Amino acid sequence: MSIKKLPLSSSDLKKIADKCKTPFNIYDEAAIIKNAQNFKKAFSWNKGFINYFAIKALPNINIARLMKKIGFGLDCSSMTELKLAEKAGYSNEEIMFSSNDTADEEFKEAYRLGAIINLDDKEHIEALYRAIGTFPKTISFRYNPGNKRSGNAIIGNPVESKYGVRDDEIVNCYRMAKKLGATRFLIHTMIASNELNMDYIVETANMIFNLVKRIKDEANIEIDGVDLGGGIGIPYREEDEAIDLFSLSEKIHALYEKIIVKNGLKPLKIAFECGRMITGPYGYLISKVLHVTHKYKDYVGLDACMADLMRPALYGSYHHITVIGKENNKKDHKYDVTGSLCENNDKFAVDRMLPEIEKDDLIAIHDTGAHGTAMGFNYNGKLRHKEFLLSEDGSLLLIRRDETFDDYIATMIDKPQKIEY
Amino acid sequence: MSIKKLPLSSSDLKKIADKCKTPFNIYDEAAIIKNAQNFKKAFSWNKGFINYFAIKALPNINIARLMKKIGFGLDCSSMTELKLAEKAGYSNEEIMFSSNDTADEEFKEAYRLGAIINLDDKEHIEALYRAIGTFPKTISFRYNPGNKRSGNAIIGNPVESKYGVRDDEIVNCYRMAKKLGATRFLIHTMIASNELNMDYIVETANMIFNLVKRIKDEANIEIDGVDLGGGIGIPYREEDEAIDLFSLSEKIHALYEKIIVKNGLKPLKIAFECGRMITGPYGYLISKVLHVTHKYKDYVGLDACMADLMRPALYGSYHHITVIGKENNKKDHKYDVTGSLCENNDKFAVDRMLPEIEKDDLIAIHDTGAHGTAMGFNYNGKLRHKEFLLSEDGSLLLIRRDETFDDYIATMIDKPQKIEY
Repeated sequence: MSIKKLPLSSSDLKKIADKCKTPFNIYDEAAIIKNAQNFKKAFSWNKGFINYFAIKALPNINIARLMKKIGFGLDCSSMTELKLAEKAGYSNEEIMFSSNDTADEEFKEAYRLGAIINLDDKEHIEALYRAIGTFPKTISFRYNPGNKRSGNAIIGNPVESKYGVRDDEIVNCYRMAKKLGATRFLIHTMIASNELNMDYIVETANMIFNLVKRIKDEANIEIDGVDLGGGIGIPYREEDEAIDLFSLSEKIHALYEKIIVKNGLKPLKIAFECGRMITGPYGYLISKVLHVTHKYKDYVGLDACMADLMRPALYGSYHHITVIGKENNKKDHKYDVTGSLCENNDKFAVDRMLPEIEKDDLIAIHDTGAHGTAMGFNYNGKLRHKEFLLSEDGSLLLIRRDETFDDYIATMIDKPQKIEY
Repeated sequence: MSIKKLPLSSSDLKKIADKCKTPFNIYDEAAIIKNAQNFKKAFSWNKGFINYFAIKALPNINIARLMKKIGFGLDCSSMTELKLAEKAGYSNEEIMFSSNDTADEEFKEAYRLGAIINLDDKEHIEALYRAIGTFPKTISFRYNPGNKRSGNAIIGNPVESKYGVRDDEIVNCYRMAKKLGATRFLIHTMIASNELNMDYIVETANMIFNLVKRIKDEANIEIDGVDLGGGIGIPYREEDEAIDLFSLSEKIHALYEKIIVKNGLKPLKIAFECGRMITGPYGYLISKVLHVTHKYKDYVGLDACMADLMRPALYGSYHHITVIGKENNKKDHKYDVTGSLCENNDKFAVDRMLPEIEKDDLIAIHDTGAHGTAMGFNYNGKLRHKEFLLSEDGSLLLIRRDETFDDYIATMIDKPQKIEY
């Protein structure tokens, strides 16, 4: 059971909406910090434990800085994310660079920053070498277990996945990297997304710890750290149960003792790269009702749209919805809650039971602290909206402004130039 | 059968790729103009025929200007699209403003521009009046036939659609509008998307012509024009057949004679708001192969990604793919063609038979002239890429530049301000 509450009172939210215009996202800093500290505490038995916050979940420089203050690293997987990391003050191994289809410039930039480079494929060994003209001392490989694992609902079956090094090639990749001069070796995997079954995550740790042993046994290469990926889910539905991080840690600890310690393997730094789990539940998309219409079904039309939150349209995802100031009203009306984008799948909820809704009501869409604004597009000329951080001391900080028409047309060439080729 | 060819030779495309960097979209102006003229010619029997180009399909000011030169109007459905229309030189009834969940400011802006305002719901009559303080002389309503039609595969069943006025309310809406001062009345509908079955479009014309008669019979209101919407599909697959516009026009003409002329109804201006059909087949996303990898399947990793074309990931859509310079090679290799975004559904094709592909090969993804760049997002820090117009005289015009890191961070607030509320 997860309790869906708001970080501010109805009257405060209404004041903010009146003053600043809807829609907007608001992120609860205190709750994010508490959650992150909890994660660190749960894994404090592991020396070197770190979470690389997946910046793609909530790509804002102020969030990146917050993660640094918390003591997290940053998980980046594109040139832009590397640049954002640097701008936010990250350097060296505070940055985990995982990419699946990496351009030379990205390898170069990651190397320049001293980031941990996580290779996605055997072919990338040579590609990296060619790009940077040498080979890094520290190297990581992303492992894809293939049919040794079944995969989770969202990320799909590992044998269908575009990511990672094949099971029959993984040991050899470490041998090749060692030959090229690497002296420190890490393993990465990511075979789940938004997973609420703790055992699946634990089984991943089991898989990776055994791989550590196998690499030692077969290639006499010691692994220094493992990144178990992200993929820890969040309870989008009230009836969902969040993963208890202390139980998770305890189970992983037991496997660590059994596989790593008992076998006399080198102490292993454990990492995750959770994004969603860190910020997801602590973000709220606040939107105003523009129209309530009665067509063949009843519709609540919001001023937000897919540009603000694409998950329901893209994945059919559930996001909890509350009507601000009507939290205790009976949910006796069935609505489709729609966005204003001219695309029929722009719906935040279908056949959702809610209190009776009127024009100008404020709606909160919950759990938008990850993969919300991050995925927004400009389709239909829709602009992306502002983000607030409700800071730990209670003050409201504007961390992203509304996009404008000038932003929208910034890359269009008003007087096109002829290009000679 | 549709023939998938490129607008430039392999060597020209390679030169452009070398000079300007991949990925990019290139649009074939001559083919777009020819196609548009064909559309106009097919419907030349109808005095007042117009196509409002759905700018959301290819939102570039240079494309908007091209459509104006062709003699098309612009179909807009957001504030930004209205502003883009104005900037491109459109005014008054050259603009069709259809929106489904319209904010007051949008109604005001559409009215200021003199656009045709197309109301989506009975409730919007009052909303429009309240927003602009009067009622426009010309008004349109979007009609939703409900269970009188079955709906097409993409846009869904009309009874599940968030759009349009209910069948049992439509006549009354015209009565109300007349009472408020409207003197010229239009009907709009849009119940198909990417439809290749001509009869479905013809049936829509039949439905609307009968509605024109019904409104005259029941409310003694004469309809001046009908907008049959967009939704004319394009042959994404080689084996698909494009709709023959002359046959379509002929069938619609016969219905026009039978329902409008025979019943002595007022001559009717026919409009469409096709976007995809106008530009879709004449756009090409050119991308370079970064890596060919052999995991549990074989992957071709491109430098383009969902930021450049989202349809395959979002809808599972098919886009034809050719390997530039290898057009005549045997298609004896099975690949997943993937984008570089760190998201497993970022695939342009799954299990596609193609010639053997090597690193640095240039790939053309066909039919990206609509809903391609338009739908791009910045997820994973991916930037959106440049667009070229291959102009009628053969010169290459840059009509959109590559997005930059500075564009990406433009709305982030580096030093957040405290907001009082």
